[in-house]
Amino acid sequence: MTDPQIQLQGLRDQIDELDQQLVELLAKRAAVTTQVGQIKSQTGMPTYVPERETQLIASRRAQAQEQGVPPDLVEDLLRRIMRESYLTQNAQYRCASVPGTKVAVIGGRGALGKLIVSLFERSHYDVVVIDKAEWADARQLLLGVKLCIVAVPIKQTIDIINTLDYLDPDCILADVTSIKQAPLDAMLAVHKGPVVGLHPMFGPDAPGMVKQVVIVCHGRQNEQYNWLLQQMITWGAQLNTSKASEHDADMAYIQVMRHFTSFVYGAHLHAEDPDLSSLIAHSSPIYRLELAMVGRLFAQDPNLYADIIFNNSENLALLKRFRTRFDEAINLFETSNKAQFVEQFTQISKWFGDYAKTCLVDSKQLLLKADDDRMLRKK
Amino acid sequence: MTDPQIQLQGLRDQIDELDQQLVELLAKRAAVTTQVGQIKSQTGMPTYVPERETQLIASRRAQAQEQGVPPDLVEDLLRRIMRESYLTQNAQYRCASVPGTKVAVIGGRGALGKLIVSLFERSHYDVVVIDKAEWADARQLLLGVKLCIVAVPIKQTIDIINTLDYLDPDCILADVTSIKQAPLDAMLAVHKGPVVGLHPMFGPDAPGMVKQVVIVCHGRQNEQYNWLLQQMITWGAQLNTSKASEHDADMAYIQVMRHFTSFVYGAHLHAEDPDLSSLIAHSSPIYRLELAMVGRLFAQDPNLYADIIFNNSENLALLKRFRTRFDEAINLFETSNKAQFVEQFTQISKWFGDYAKTCLVDSKQLLLKADDDRMLRKK
Repeated sequence: MTDPQIQLQGLRDQIDELDQQLVELLAKRAAVTTQVGQIKSQTGMPTYVPERETQLIASRRAQAQEQGVPPDLVEDLLRRIMRESYLTQNAQYRCASVPGTKVAVIGGRGALGKLIVSLFERSHYDVVVIDKAEWADARQLLLGVKLCIVAVPIKQTIDIINTLDYLDPDCILADVTSIKQAPLDAMLAVHKGPVVGLHPMFGPDAPGMVKQVVIVCHGRQNEQYNWLLQQMITWGAQLNTSKASEHDADMAYIQVMRHFTSFVYGAHLHAEDPDLSSLIAHSSPIYRLELAMVGRLFAQDPNLYADIIFNNSENLALLKRFRTRFDEAINLFETSNKAQFVEQFTQISKWFGDYAKTCLVDSKQLLLKADDDRMLRKK
Repeated sequence: MTDPQIQLQGLRDQIDELDQQLVELLAKRAAVTTQVGQIKSQTGMPTYVPERETQLIASRRAQAQEQGVPPDLVEDLLRRIMRESYLTQNAQYRCASVPGTKVAVIGGRGALGKLIVSLFERSHYDVVVIDKAEWADARQLLLGVKLCIVAVPIKQTIDIINTLDYLDPDCILADVTSIKQAPLDAMLAVHKGPVVGLHPMFGPDAPGMVKQVVIVCHGRQNEQYNWLLQQMITWGAQLNTSKASEHDADMAYIQVMRHFTSFVYGAHLHAEDPDLSSLIAHSSPIYRLELAMVGRLFAQDPNLYADIIFNNSENLALLKRFRTRFDEAINLFETSNKAQFVEQFTQISKWFGDYAKTCLVDSKQLLLKADDDRMLRKK
């Protein structure tokens, strides 16, 4: 080896030594946070305490500044470490109601249903799982249940709710469908007791409810289901109240337009049939991310997406207006009206306002993270 | 304070103590990697050594496994730490040609141009910046230049290249435009010496060239510009050779379709005018990411995007076929043909193959990272 190579080897040995210490530090930290988790679950203290997190990060950023370490680096590392520690902390939760309270989850063997069942079980409830196999005995199984959650696929939700006219009058009836007005109306019509519509804003693949947003659409007798909301807060959820109608109008823009756009984009690529691996190789990280957002749709269940889009006729009207805008844009290019394109672009920019800039900054940050993981890169 | 609160405080103090040690460890590590950077730049060793990185991570993952720390956590942290260390390492680079070699960057005050100028300067070249202010004197300034890089906006590229019929016969002529066939043809026609087309697959906001992909389209006299390719490897780039025509065909699918889709999506939202802050509040992280991918377009220069899309008539033909698919999809919904939708969806899934699954996994990972940073969340 040449001199610089020997020097380099010495420095690399030092780095390896420091990295070993890092792993040891993480092991010690995990031992302490496991104890924190035990105390929290025994006493019902919430898993996620934003103030503690803010203070912890601020102190370390200040220290980093003093010692010449980039504060953003320290914050990124601490957030990653804390994410892991939430996962190990959430073994058990305090019950926000009386332990042993009977809770039924209809559709409890579906992806989201399973997660809900597991959270209630780990919070010391008596959980009744009702799925296809148990449906014939539902009436019997629902006797004495204090909370009945409907977690079936969207297209079955209303039909299932309509059968539930025999629940105990003090039983809470709730659903977790991604639309809210129709299920809420159906629940209020079929059941005289407490009713609440919930929309957990995360996929069934989320590791739990920590830091996840749940939309709450109040139905009837709010005070009766307060413990359910408290329970979700104990699980780490952030609750966000909304009117069902406003929620649904927003969902049309959010879900229906996105899924439809991704579907058409995929259909177009499929019909054109370019070499996908060459497309990926010739894409910069930002385009790979955009392609991944389309590709991910097609790894999922087509029926779910069909149900979301075919769900109501207003969606079709929205998509037809979307087509009009598509035609108008094509027309700009057909007539080579570049000035009009720039003018319209500028108006849309104004409509997005500061949010556009935030998106640009956030997506850049995100790409750097994707890069750390060699995600979205050529295989 | 109650007993559990006192216990909790004690544990939190222990966590703070461990986190302090973490910051100290990072400071020590940065001191060592700075020395590594100095040795590398003095000797011209490449900044990015994939084998060393792989070995470093494998050793720490093995140690983590033994000590009961999640190996993925350790890998994520190390990759984030290494990203930072590349930034601090890249102060100076070895010159892959003769130090003092004259290099000209036309458009050297633009965003990408500035980055290129800085990289050459830090590699001990004699860099001539030619921008609007110097254009009148270009012929004079380009005397004795061994490498002339055209880094002007896409719509000016060909016109600028067409003037360069007076370069020294041994001067390398290169461009960095995001299309390659037309500039390459123009360069080969105007200049008799070595010619190469380059497409750096990253935005001007990238922190440097470390780990970034650069597409190389060979023109003429490859062996004459080998040092330029070596120089980019020293900067950390990953080179990827392609035919100009294949590159451009892929770019139509990648850039033109994406920009057009995002433009129409933004135009539709603008025309429908929903409450944007409510949309964001009602979006789960994945939809926020999708909205951000649209929003980011409108924080950028409309002229750049107009130039990319209006660039050639094949783009229009591609977009018109795209419209046909849009109409076909609308038609499925109009006729409530859910079965056909599911059938087509399944075919597209097959076309995407394993990539769809990779996209789903990657985007989930990415969302967890976005979550660490509270990016894409309700403000």
